[in-house]
Amino acid sequence: MAVELKGLTKRSENYSQWYNELVVKADLAEQSAVRGCMVIKPYGYAIWEKMQRQLDDMFKATGHVNAYFPLLIPKSYLSREAEHVEGFAKECAVVTHYRLKTSADGSGVVVDPEAKLEEELIIRPTSETIIWSTYKNWINSYRDLPILCNQWANVMRWEMRTRLFLRTAEFLWQEGHTAHATREEAEAEAQRMLHVYGDFAENFMAVPVVKGVKSANERFAGALDTYTIEGLMQDGKALQCGTSHFLGQNFAKAFDVKFIDQNNRLDYVWATSWGVSTRLMGALIMTHSDDNGLVLPPKLAPIQVVIVPIYKNADQLAQINAKVDGIVQRLRGMGISVKYDNADNKRPGFKFADYELKGVPVRLVMGGRDLENNTMEVMRRDTLEKETRSCDGIEEYVRTLLDEIQQNIYRKALDYRNAHIVKVNTYDEFKKQIEKGGFVLAHWDGTTATEERIKEETKATIRCVPFDADEESLQPGVDMITGKLSARRVLMARAY
Amino acid sequence: MAVELKGLTKRSENYSQWYNELVVKADLAEQSAVRGCMVIKPYGYAIWEKMQRQLDDMFKATGHVNAYFPLLIPKSYLSREAEHVEGFAKECAVVTHYRLKTSADGSGVVVDPEAKLEEELIIRPTSETIIWSTYKNWINSYRDLPILCNQWANVMRWEMRTRLFLRTAEFLWQEGHTAHATREEAEAEAQRMLHVYGDFAENFMAVPVVKGVKSANERFAGALDTYTIEGLMQDGKALQCGTSHFLGQNFAKAFDVKFIDQNNRLDYVWATSWGVSTRLMGALIMTHSDDNGLVLPPKLAPIQVVIVPIYKNADQLAQINAKVDGIVQRLRGMGISVKYDNADNKRPGFKFADYELKGVPVRLVMGGRDLENNTMEVMRRDTLEKETRSCDGIEEYVRTLLDEIQQNIYRKALDYRNAHIVKVNTYDEFKKQIEKGGFVLAHWDGTTATEERIKEETKATIRCVPFDADEESLQPGVDMITGKLSARRVLMARAY
Repeated sequence: MAVELKGLTKRSENYSQWYNELVVKADLAEQSAVRGCMVIKPYGYAIWEKMQRQLDDMFKATGHVNAYFPLLIPKSYLSREAEHVEGFAKECAVVTHYRLKTSADGSGVVVDPEAKLEEELIIRPTSETIIWSTYKNWINSYRDLPILCNQWANVMRWEMRTRLFLRTAEFLWQEGHTAHATREEAEAEAQRMLHVYGDFAENFMAVPVVKGVKSANERFAGALDTYTIEGLMQDGKALQCGTSHFLGQNFAKAFDVKFIDQNNRLDYVWATSWGVSTRLMGALIMTHSDDNGLVLPPKLAPIQVVIVPIYKNADQLAQINAKVDGIVQRLRGMGISVKYDNADNKRPGFKFADYELKGVPVRLVMGGRDLENNTMEVMRRDTLEKETRSCDGIEEYVRTLLDEIQQNIYRKALDYRNAHIVKVNTYDEFKKQIEKGGFVLAHWDGTTATEERIKEETKATIRCVPFDADEESLQPGVDMITGKLSARRVLMARAY
Repeated sequence: MAVELKGLTKRSENYSQWYNELVVKADLAEQSAVRGCMVIKPYGYAIWEKMQRQLDDMFKATGHVNAYFPLLIPKSYLSREAEHVEGFAKECAVVTHYRLKTSADGSGVVVDPEAKLEEELIIRPTSETIIWSTYKNWINSYRDLPILCNQWANVMRWEMRTRLFLRTAEFLWQEGHTAHATREEAEAEAQRMLHVYGDFAENFMAVPVVKGVKSANERFAGALDTYTIEGLMQDGKALQCGTSHFLGQNFAKAFDVKFIDQNNRLDYVWATSWGVSTRLMGALIMTHSDDNGLVLPPKLAPIQVVIVPIYKNADQLAQINAKVDGIVQRLRGMGISVKYDNADNKRPGFKFADYELKGVPVRLVMGGRDLENNTMEVMRRDTLEKETRSCDGIEEYVRTLLDEIQQNIYRKALDYRNAHIVKVNTYDEFKKQIEKGGFVLAHWDGTTATEERIKEETKATIRCVPFDADEESLQPGVDMITGKLSARRVLMARAY
């Protein structure tokens, strides 16, 4: 391993430090000069773009359209929906003025006190309020429904402790906001989008997720139900990867959005909202990567295949170039993204370590002997296994290998996840298990009091009531603390 | 024409009002509850997405990558580059606090006075300062150069008078920020990107543009040269469609960004920046549309072909559906976006007017007689001409027609533009000509004083010194006001 891996902490030594270092060393993101706001670097952004494109296609395939709503929200809007303000109003960036002026001593600029806004504006922490104030003008009758809008946007929540991708003051996300004529249709939409998120996480990110519904205490501020997909990171902590909310008529009531139904009756509109963010980058990194660096699923890797020549002299390089050129063309013709790195200012060993660090799924190497034998060395990033293959048909082999890697890293993550879901029946067992990490299936009496006691004493939270569960988990039982009746087991864990 | 066109002001009556109404009636955008900030509605956003996708492809084809930098900029950054702060610092949204709290009477939320920021943060009006403070950490040696980054982002300038798409407080844009080892390379980059913008405007938007360089007075704040593409709207006013700036070493000096060159000497880095915004939507609308509504270039139309059935009864509709289905599939197979609108809650005449308003380039209609004759009525939006064609081979005909429409609206706009470039030699002529609208080629002595006098007296500005000019325009002459020497004719107009 070459220079840049020096100092990459091992996961077993300090998982949290390993993550922080990896994000920076792999050129994904870095802290900016503005507290809590990150710079997403080109390589990190390229992965995010692939996620965006895929999610956007999936949203459109389910009938959604994109739109754009204002960044700023009048302060008074936040207090319209009572529960919503409780959950969100606290930590927001507040715009109070709209002009600067040259300072009296001419040395810089100061806020112009005469340019004070009559009503302060908040940088959106989420857009339910501004969007429902807009929908009021779009909706009169059932004929105007459903509205199935999504927006790709930046949002801001003034977090005190931030970590790149996982928790930042500003982050990028998409937020879907839909309006429906019936409760049933809105509930179905909220669940449909959760399944879209689940499909995306599993089939593209190769991150297995548990789908389920949040406890009342963990619901989105203003929602009647919050659905979630929960991943399990390699350190045994859960990560909430995406949520979809059934909002009932709460925002319609707060913003007075009514419609005339088919029977000519006036009623409030039913709503959902759903979002995933750059936090998914954190889930992607923490699910698959290892002590050598990133491991990326081929479907989201900006570079799927890197080819590196090893040569003694310019003449040999020219021969390798000629040979590799056809392979590059054929791979690209198959829709595979290929980088041929024959730059002569870096040694092959340096390149190898760098592409491993960056998680490029497949590496092909051609040296002098390979040239003679019409072979290449194939290295797969997920297992680091190498083999020598004939150049004949290597393109088809690589294509199959990319599929195999995609499936393998999913299987590996699934096996890990499944091996770390444990049922416990007593609080003592629970506390021991939670220390070990992983998901715990336990009985809970359904009260917020018990939930909060568990959180306080063990730092574990109820991640969700899973949709899928084995027969035994669906049977009633007794709460492990209070001994009160429990309808079924719920999923708990310490979480990011 | 059906109901929704009632009240669309004619261009000849009031061009400005026609524009404002059209943007709203065609469902492109609307004012939001936040002063100067617009809501981009799904149909408008779908056009913007097509622009984005195409521009992004063109940026990537010229070697650029995307990244993301913070929304907020420390106030002090703005005053680092002296000219930059003059041009931008004045009208900005200023974040002064990071928390709200429940008001004393419990009725709402107020800004928490204890959560005052030590240094105020500005919502980016443009990102040179935050990006160059970041590049400082990315650049040490010539090996780190060039950096060719672009970001898609929202920005905010607190404009007093706003108009949808043309001038809004918040708008969407892309901003390229590149760093280079030599002056020559940076200058070439700034010009290359201007040509990318020009190609995009002409070949995709079908908007002919004059490419050139701005006068010193009209330069971007902090630039050594600003290149521009200038369009001419149907009312004879110019619209600046995009700019590309050669920034010299100004921002590198302001943020102390140096590199070691190949001769081991330390030097400041050379910079460019370039951007286009949702303002392009305004250019698109004002260049092509007519009194019936939008006219969209097929390459950017979200729906390229709409098919409407006219039927007497369910049986006839079923027969039309069956017939149309194959045509829809074949058109989609050619990559053409098609909408088949057989909804039965709107009359055909209403649909016709609505799709005309929305600028769908080609409309196909099948009625009972068409069904018998194996024909369809084909209407092209640009000329409103109709003809009846056999269904056999209609897909190929439509594909060719879409190309023809794309070329025709460009040709039409080009003819208009070329007919409205007039040379004048005296200030009297100039004033008369400017009243009529259009571009004027005149001699100018190169001083800001003369330029400002012209602006004050006629509201005309120097749009650019065009790259392409006929032989006569390149000859020296005398300034039409001062009689002083003029190196060549420059392009002037009243502008948006």
